[in-house]
Order: sequence, then structure tokens, then C-alpha cells
Amino acid sequence: MTEPSSDPGFLLPERKARIDAVVAQRTRTLTVVMEAFADPQNTNAVLRTAESFGVQEVHVVEGPQKRYDRNKKISQNADKWLEVVRWKDTASCLAALKARGFLVYATHLGEGSRGLNDLSFAEPVALVFGNEHAGVSAEARRLADRCFAIPMRGFSQSFNVSVAAAICLARAVDRREVERGRHGDLAPDELEALRTRFYALSVKQRARIARAERAAERGRGR
Amino acid sequence: MTEPSSDPGFLLPERKARIDAVVAQRTRTLTVVMEAFADPQNTNAVLRTAESFGVQEVHVVEGPQKRYDRNKKISQNADKWLEVVRWKDTASCLAALKARGFLVYATHLGEGSRGLNDLSFAEPVALVFGNEHAGVSAEARRLADRCFAIPMRGFSQSFNVSVAAAICLARAVDRREVERGRHGDLAPDELEALRTRFYALSVKQRARIARAERAAERGRGR
Repeated sequence: MTEPSSDPGFLLPERKARIDAVVAQRTRTLTVVMEAFADPQNTNAVLRTAESFGVQEVHVVEGPQKRYDRNKKISQNADKWLEVVRWKDTASCLAALKARGFLVYATHLGEGSRGLNDLSFAEPVALVFGNEHAGVSAEARRLADRCFAIPMRGFSQSFNVSVAAAICLARAVDRREVERGRHGDLAPDELEALRTRFYALSVKQRARIARAERAAERGRGR
Repeated sequence: MTEPSSDPGFLLPERKARIDAVVAQRTRTLTVVMEAFADPQNTNAVLRTAESFGVQEVHVVEGPQKRYDRNKKISQNADKWLEVVRWKDTASCLAALKARGFLVYATHLGEGSRGLNDLSFAEPVALVFGNEHAGVSAEARRLADRCFAIPMRGFSQSFNVSVAAAICLARAVDRREVERGRHGDLAPDELEALRTRFYALSVKQRARIARAERAAERGRGR
């Protein structure tokens, strides 16, 4: 017998409420740029963290070596719920973001760079994180509106890049709530479109789970 | 020819200054408890993050499965500069910390738990992070002065534990500077003892590097 809730075309009210709550916390005025990461594990870890902070759109500039591949275990499927934009080069990515009104903050410790806690998040901001070994490129530093660093208090020269991204995003979200009054800020039409997309994704997910359950039941000879 | 700076018994003034700066930022009134982590990569990642935030003392409660092993690649040798205290069980660890005046804050979302940003760091605090799958134990929850969680805004149920530790430590350090006036707070005698220890460790490190260089030179037939 099929219960109503296992109809794959149907979403439980709790699931809809969860989607509505997530969409209300989503933003496209805070974003992350991952520049030529060497380790796809780090890309996937940052995707999971971005999703958890409601950052809907994430930019990946492909490195020379490895292509970023999905890793479900590490990303926890977070990218399913995100817009991951891929770029061949940093200049195009940052130019597009600046044209859309983003301030570009690149993680780099050098002359004129600020501490994370001295950054303003009143405007739309793109946070640029660089390659694990080389850091952000000279081009990213040149195009950035601001370079900044998380103050290092110990002997370690740097944080792991996915740790650094998490610390920066946590700070950004806190500051946005103070400086902009709120973090989640999709316009009504964006909000409606994203809600519709997430409903559809959830229905597909239910259908997949239902098929897997039926297959498992047949396997048990029922 | 041997330059003065390659004498392994000798520390450059820059190195001494670096050690002095690190020691001034060290604390033993903020600590981390890692309870029965399944993945030693996470233990090592948290050690690196703790070291970077000046947290001198870290507690590891051994899990049933795997023993924590050093992983230089992930910890970046951070544990060399830390006091890593190992415990067989959570109760002994938390009892010892409470006897020393620590408030114990366990990461757990449940009735009565607070958001990270609602925690006070005016007193000495031990932050407890639990097993990647099971979370903190019932015992840790029972013994904790407070349970808390980082607000989750997306579909992901949780942050990776090393990401969570980084977000919490960043927040703790910021709040300590506001609520206690400073983060690094070793007493003069502790400070002196740690400085002496770090000098000695650095001299040993130099000696090791010098030996490796001599061996490499012999290898090149010089």
C-alpha cells in the first residue's frame, strides 16, 4: 500500500516549510570565488560551507591542473542547491562580478591589506580565495578592491583554505546582519523562482528515493 | 663555509621576535575538547586551527575505533607547539577542566541550547566538539554548562567538524578581546616558561635542518 507521503509528486508540508526557511536565508549579494584550487576536496568543502551560510552563487576559476569534480561525501551534495559558475580565467570572473556591483576582497597579506575584522560588508562582496600553495594570483590582487587577511596568531603561516573560507563567511554573515540589517535578501521574484526550483529538486529527490526503496524491497523478495 | 646563522645553537633575532610575538598571543583560558573523533584528519586539522588562534592546550578524548595519530601534512606540525592532553573518557576530561574553573560549552542542538553568538567568553571556556557522526556524547551534554550550535541556514545538517571548530574559535577570540580585553593572557611565569621551551624547540629544529642540509650536500658530492 502506498501512503500519501510516499507519492513522489507530493511534498510534505514540513519539507515545504524547510525549503521556504532556507530560501528566506539565501543571498546573491555575498559570493565566493575559488581561484585555481589544487585539491578538489577543498572546493567541495567550501561548497558545503557556502551552502550552510546561505550563499547561493559560488564561482570556480578552473586551475591549470585539475578539474573540480563533485565529491558527494565532502560537499554533502551541497552543490545541488547552489549555482556554481565556472570560469576559465580570473579576469573574466572578477570583471563580471565588478560589473554587477560587487566589491572584490582578495585574501592576501601584503602592503595595504586589512584584517578580516576591518572589512565592511555593507555592499555586495565577493571573497576571493587562492590556490593552496601559491595564494591568490597577481591578477586577482590587481583587480581586487581590497586585499585582506585573517590575523595569524601562531606559528602556522596560514589556515587551510576551507577553514579560512568558513571563518570569513561567518564574519561576513554577522556583519551583513549589522550593516545591511539582514543576510538573506533575495528579491520577491528571485525568491519565488528559487522556491519553485527547490520544490522541483525535492520532488525529484523523493522520486529517486522511492525508486531505490522499491528496488530494495524487490531485492528482499517482497 | 659556515655562516653564523647556520650555527644550530643560535637563534636569529627575527626568530626570537617571532616566538615572543606568538607567546604573547597564547592562552590557556580557552581550550578545545575533541571527543572520540572518527577521522584523525579532523583532529589534525583542528590542532592546526587551534595553534593559529593561540590556543595552547587542547584535549583529545580517545574514541573506541582509531587512535589519533600525528599527520604532519594536515596539522602542519602544529601539535609540536601545543600541549595535547589525551584522555580515556569524557567524564575525567570535563571534570578536570571544570575543577580548573572552565565553563564547558558543548556543540549540540537541542532544547535549551543557544546560538554561538549568544555565548559569553568572559570566563575560561572549553569548547567540546563531538564525533563526526554521533555528535557529542550524552555524558558531555550532561556535564556541559551550556549546549550551543552554529545556526545552520541551508539544507546541510551540519558543518564539517574542523570547519565548526574554526568558526567557534574565531568567534571566541573576537569575544574574548571584547569581554576580557585581550585573548593572549599567560601569566608572566607561564610566558617565560613557554618562551624558553619554544626557543629550545626552535634550536632543535635548526639543528635538524642543518643536519639535513649537510646530508644533502654530501649527497651532491660536495
